[in-house]
Amino acid sequence: MKSLTELFIKADNLPKSRVVVAAAQEEATLNASLDAFRRGWIDLTLVGDLDKIRSILSSAGMDCEDIRLIKATTLEEAAVISVREISEGRGDILLKGLVDTSILLKAVLNKEAGLRKSSLLSHFMVYEVPSWNRLVALSDGGMNTHPDLPKKKAILDNALEAMQKLGYMSVKTCLLAAKEKPDPSMPATVEAAELASMYDDSPHIVEGPMALDLALSRESAEVKKYSSRISGEVDLFIVSSIEVGNVLGKAFTLLAGAQSAGVILGASIPVLVVSRSDSRITKLYSIALGKVLASNERSGR
Amino acid sequence: MKSLTELFIKADNLPKSRVVVAAAQEEATLNASLDAFRRGWIDLTLVGDLDKIRSILSSAGMDCEDIRLIKATTLEEAAVISVREISEGRGDILLKGLVDTSILLKAVLNKEAGLRKSSLLSHFMVYEVPSWNRLVALSDGGMNTHPDLPKKKAILDNALEAMQKLGYMSVKTCLLAAKEKPDPSMPATVEAAELASMYDDSPHIVEGPMALDLALSRESAEVKKYSSRISGEVDLFIVSSIEVGNVLGKAFTLLAGAQSAGVILGASIPVLVVSRSDSRITKLYSIALGKVLASNERSGR
Repeated sequence: MKSLTELFIKADNLPKSRVVVAAAQEEATLNASLDAFRRGWIDLTLVGDLDKIRSILSSAGMDCEDIRLIKATTLEEAAVISVREISEGRGDILLKGLVDTSILLKAVLNKEAGLRKSSLLSHFMVYEVPSWNRLVALSDGGMNTHPDLPKKKAILDNALEAMQKLGYMSVKTCLLAAKEKPDPSMPATVEAAELASMYDDSPHIVEGPMALDLALSRESAEVKKYSSRISGEVDLFIVSSIEVGNVLGKAFTLLAGAQSAGVILGASIPVLVVSRSDSRITKLYSIALGKVLASNERSGR
Repeated sequence: MKSLTELFIKADNLPKSRVVVAAAQEEATLNASLDAFRRGWIDLTLVGDLDKIRSILSSAGMDCEDIRLIKATTLEEAAVISVREISEGRGDILLKGLVDTSILLKAVLNKEAGLRKSSLLSHFMVYEVPSWNRLVALSDGGMNTHPDLPKKKAILDNALEAMQKLGYMSVKTCLLAAKEKPDPSMPATVEAAELASMYDDSPHIVEGPMALDLALSRESAEVKKYSSRISGEVDLFIVSSIEVGNVLGKAFTLLAGAQSAGVILGASIPVLVVSRSDSRITKLYSIALGKVLASNERSGR
């Protein structure tokens, strides 16, 4: 994909999904879901404190007729009810409102809910950097703090599946590290080499360990005589720790002016955790991302 | 400091230093040192394979009269002789030529050489980001892979001393992590809080744990209601691992178009390790940085 605008176009052209908002009495999140609702992308189920929810809807000039409302007394209850709505087939995307992420994910992972799928939940971001002519994805800069090799493999598998749903046939993946040669003093380099070797026979190109300069610049790779099939064309970065993912994602946003969209992968439905500090457009990009992933997801259920 | 150009001006106005180049038969490094020599910044001692060195000097149109040449048969010998030149008072800055960094630093750390000073050698970079009106420094993205708390303190102390030599009275330091609250699942956050508390009574402002968005943008800090004395004005980033430092430094360069200068701190003289892939101007910035640090260093020896 070349831009996040393509996500909007995909979302415009897909049948409606139903978004369930857990503890929807969070104004910024609810307003973002209303943006998507007005655009005709989604149906809405709002779970939580109905007085507060109705008040926000009223401020937004919305009447409640076309929106399903379910009362929940506590945040925990809002999480459990929201997950049940989805597990019983009345929702396709879960959107976090006021409830803590940990409480929401506990409800998602509850075995009776039946929404577990991958061995691991992981955070996945997509960035559109102005002046580049393609999107770049990043995982995991938000959930898994210091993944070991099996977890890195699960993170990568989750991300590759999402990229395929976004339309990628073969994903050019960089396993990011501080240098290119496996070095026992830097475990990230050794694990990257091991992880890359597991994908020799896959349709994807997984290279690493590789440092950022060689990933972003074919010219740098040529100067350093580093032979790569993906230098300057990386679609996906897999990082070794949350510190690296957090810094790289924020560098894309703050240093390169990127727009972004994010989702939690690994459950049988996309889980969206939009941040209050996200811009309105970023929240909408995330809902579009969730819708595109859910749409394909549904056919696989 | 506002720009790397200020380094050039400082270097122009200081008395000459003598740079000793270990295994100077590396063309790009030797040419960078000749640039500084022609600018009148430095005297030069070239140690290594004299045939090759003379050939490079000849190609560069230099005669050898004003340059001290010392023969060394092996790279190890070049390292040992170069360090001895400095420890015996005949040099102020050590510049790595063809010799491996590990061999050079082993010679520096040899107790008989007398060049040990700090408890730890650390890598220190300074970046000039276009559109910002100040420099930002970063340590350690090049040498110490996963420093523990005492090592982080040594890295910070080395960096603060260098910043003071560059003219900073009080250094605004960010201890970078993935979030602001100490969290046992992310040791970098816990260690950042401990490290910050050690500088409560120092002339410097050391804050952390802090994520990149809050460090770079006062607006982000305000949205997140994060109270900080340094948001948007950070002079120095201390990172938790080489992976983070490497990514952040390369993001400054590749995403924000930064110019940079680098030096190894912790010995009694600056050690310069310029990379062949560095641009000519970057190499010269590093020599200027070494000269400014050496000049202050000298008065303290």
